[in-house]
This record gives sequence, structure tokens and C-alpha cells, in this order.
Amino acid sequence: MNDSRDAHQALAAQAARCRAMIRRSEHTGPTAGLAPGCVQANLMILPQSLAADFLLFCQRNPKPCPLLAVAPAGQYTVPALGEDIDIRRDVPKYRVWRDGELVSEPADLMDVWRDDLVSFLIGCSFSFEEALLADGIDVRHISQGSNVPMYRTNIPTQGTPRLNGPLVVSMRPMTAADAIRAVQITSRFPSVHGAPVHLGDPALIGIRDIDRPDYGDPVAIHDGELPVFWACGVTPQAIIHTVKPEFSITHAPGHMLITDVSNSRLASF
Amino acid sequence: MNDSRDAHQALAAQAARCRAMIRRSEHTGPTAGLAPGCVQANLMILPQSLAADFLLFCQRNPKPCPLLAVAPAGQYTVPALGEDIDIRRDVPKYRVWRDGELVSEPADLMDVWRDDLVSFLIGCSFSFEEALLADGIDVRHISQGSNVPMYRTNIPTQGTPRLNGPLVVSMRPMTAADAIRAVQITSRFPSVHGAPVHLGDPALIGIRDIDRPDYGDPVAIHDGELPVFWACGVTPQAIIHTVKPEFSITHAPGHMLITDVSNSRLASF
Repeated sequence: MNDSRDAHQALAAQAARCRAMIRRSEHTGPTAGLAPGCVQANLMILPQSLAADFLLFCQRNPKPCPLLAVAPAGQYTVPALGEDIDIRRDVPKYRVWRDGELVSEPADLMDVWRDDLVSFLIGCSFSFEEALLADGIDVRHISQGSNVPMYRTNIPTQGTPRLNGPLVVSMRPMTAADAIRAVQITSRFPSVHGAPVHLGDPALIGIRDIDRPDYGDPVAIHDGELPVFWACGVTPQAIIHTVKPEFSITHAPGHMLITDVSNSRLASF
Repeated sequence: MNDSRDAHQALAAQAARCRAMIRRSEHTGPTAGLAPGCVQANLMILPQSLAADFLLFCQRNPKPCPLLAVAPAGQYTVPALGEDIDIRRDVPKYRVWRDGELVSEPADLMDVWRDDLVSFLIGCSFSFEEALLADGIDVRHISQGSNVPMYRTNIPTQGTPRLNGPLVVSMRPMTAADAIRAVQITSRFPSVHGAPVHLGDPALIGIRDIDRPDYGDPVAIHDGELPVFWACGVTPQAIIHTVKPEFSITHAPGHMLITDVSNSRLASF
């Protein structure tokens, strides 16, 4: 009992150390590989006037937008994910959007924070990638040392009165046997996108050129491998691109919020 | 409580009625669609001298040969699968093999039964097909009204000192989304072959012509569909073909032993 409590506290302490480094700008890059074992989260911040719509959007689109936590208007703490989290300062790079256009990528939100902002923390594929790696599956963008490739698809999300747009997917190439195993593994993690949404021919979901992702970097697909596609937490950025809200903030792709929650806590069975 | 016991007894009674019809030669064809909800089994009968080897073979190859029950030498009942089962008479069509050659396809085994014969009952994909259909997935050979297509592959089984040969697979074409769902569904049924072993390019597992199955009938593969392959209980027949034992008996493909066991009892979670 003490051993497992100690292990959990060590994990949370590690996450807190990483957030502190990021807050002091000692780490400014992507967060992949930081605080292994800890859940990392996608961030979407909207004015209160759009918050109810986005909450409904997440309810209707749980695969791209599995909600881990919501901080109400003006609140920049999120104790459910970590006692000392400051949403304004603990992500290495943010994106500030006005009328759907990216206007800046600041290292903190101290200058732009408003009391009407609602923050949504959304599950991230880093959690299931850890489970894939533990099973001996090659996760190509990790072995290549690059960002995961992401694509806008022709699959529509389930829109709300004020929010709609295409599903964004991330892609990992694998052998068929690994793809089957990956379906089993990622099905256990519904709160970090769950099972793939597609595999095989990219054209069937509107991807014209697999070597030109819309976000992230291209990866090599070896002979005998299939591309396997998961719903992606960057989908809200495609929604912003589509509906052009007056003001919004997201993380920069790959630059996530590190939480105290253990990845294993997300496994459904 | 009484309701669920009644439902179980009704299921078993239905299975017993089907076996009685088969025993009286009132049903002589394939058993697909008979006694819905009941487990059907592949049959492999070997002389005692090979039985220990085959038991080891099943242990090493649980995906093609998931053992439901074993009847010891000379015993033609199998009470674990149904009180009144008579292995010699309750399969609509058998195959008798000598030195690896098919010598007859009798409707019962009364003339060839021997006191040294050991019977192995092996899980069958009919159980998971029922779960696929219940989920709204089109199972092509069922909607086509034909036998499932089966293929010898270049995937070797894990051999034993006296038994070896290629893995046989069954194939069902599906959209990618249905294939992903089918991995989830069939993973719940490890005792009836479990998850697929391959999907996509048939050549990668040594299948030259998908339109010419080695057993069963070809099925249509529509645009945008992938062939999905499961380990198959006909694999022991490919083993017989390879190692040519002095004497053996199997069911004829598609002509299964109907048991009293409920399909839902096989679900692992």
C-alpha cells in the first residue's frame, strides 16, 4: 500500500517538476517524453459566450475531444489534474487566435488572460503511445524523432449551432498484426481518443497526400505497412479555422499540459 | 432468476432438437443459422497414439485451435457441451482420412468408430459472427448465402514433434471502420479464434488469389473494403494434409457440432 502510494506521489512530483521547468522557461519545446507515465492534455480556451457550445461539441465528438477537465470562467487552476497547475503558465507554447487567425505563439498567457475565459483540457494520444511502446510496437514518429503527422479529413464532426468543422486525425504506420494489436490496446483508453477511426487507404477519408500532413511532420511508411488513423485533439484548431471565433487560445501542437494523473488510471479494463 | 434459467434451458432445448434432427438425417447440410445463440464446434478425432501431440499442438496454437472440450479414448459423449451429445452421430457430415487422403464423407461414424479414438472439440467462428451481426456489421458470406472463404497461408503453425503445417484463415471483407469494430468485438471471444491475424494485402500472408479460396466459397469484396483474416478451425485439416496420419476424422467444413453452450458464455469481458 505504501509502495503504491509512494509510486503515485513520485509520478506526481515528476510532473510538478516538469511544469515548474516550463513555468521558468527552462523547457520551451514539445513535451513528448517528459514525465513518462503522466497524462498530458490538449488545451482549448474560449470566451464564456462559446463555452456551452463547446461543451456540447465535446459531448457529441468524444473521440477527437475526450474531456479530462473543465476550468470555469476566469479560473486558471485545475486541481483535478494537479494541485499547483496554472493554465496560463504551464504550457511551453500557446497559440492565440483572433477571428480564426493565428496572431501569436506566446510562452505564457499573462498578457492576454481574461476573466471570461473557460479552459477545456482534452485527452492526448501520448497516453496510448506509451502503452503501444510498452507492447513493443514501433511508433514511427517517436523512433524518427519527429512530431506525429496530422491531417484534416473529409469526415465531418457532429456540429453544434455555432461550432463545426472536419475531423483531424493523427497517423501511425504499422504492420497489419501491430495494427490489430493497436486496436486492442487503444480501445482500453477511451479518454485519450480510444480505437482508430480508419486504417488503410488515406483517400477514403479525404487525405490526398499522406506525405504532406496538415500539422506535424511526415513519417516513413515501410513496405507491408498500413497507415492507421486516430481521432486527434487538434480537431478544435480545425474548428477555429472553420468557424473563426472572435477570440480563442490553444496549446501549440505537441506542446501539452503535463498533469499529475497516471496514464494507467485512464485504462478502462 | 427464473427468467434467465428458463432462457438458458430454452437455448439448450433448441440445440438438442437440432442434434436430434441431424441424428435422424432430417438435416444433412451446413449448420450455419441453426440453433442461434448456441456455440457450434469444429471436430478433430485422432487415434490415442497422436492425441497427446495434438493436445500440445492446440496449446501452442490457441488462435486456430481453441479447445472447448476433449473426450478421452473411446468416449463419444461430451457432457460439458451437452448432456445427450453423441460425437459419432450428431454432425451432419464427417470426413474420414487415411494416410492424409480423404476417403469418405459419411453421415455418421457407426461403421468406423474405434475404442482408441480421442475427440477434440474446437471453437468455431459462428459464435463471433453472431456478435458481428448483432452489431450491424455485414458478414458477406452470410448475406451472400454461401460458405465462408478459407485459405492456406504461408504463416506456419507452432509445430510439435509429429504435427505441423500452415495456418488456415477465414476471410470477411469489411470497411475499415467495421474492421476496427470487428477487432474489438472478436477480441472478446478468445475461445472462438479471437481477434483477426491479418488485414489488408492478402499476398503478405501468402494468399495468391483472393477469389480462389482453398476451402469454402469466394465472396465479393466491394470498393473501399479490406479483407480481414481470422485463424480458422479448419487448420487441423491442413495439418492432416501435411503430416498424413494413418487415420483421422474431422467434420466437413461448415457442418459443425451444435452444443448447449450459450455464445454469450464465451465472451471474456
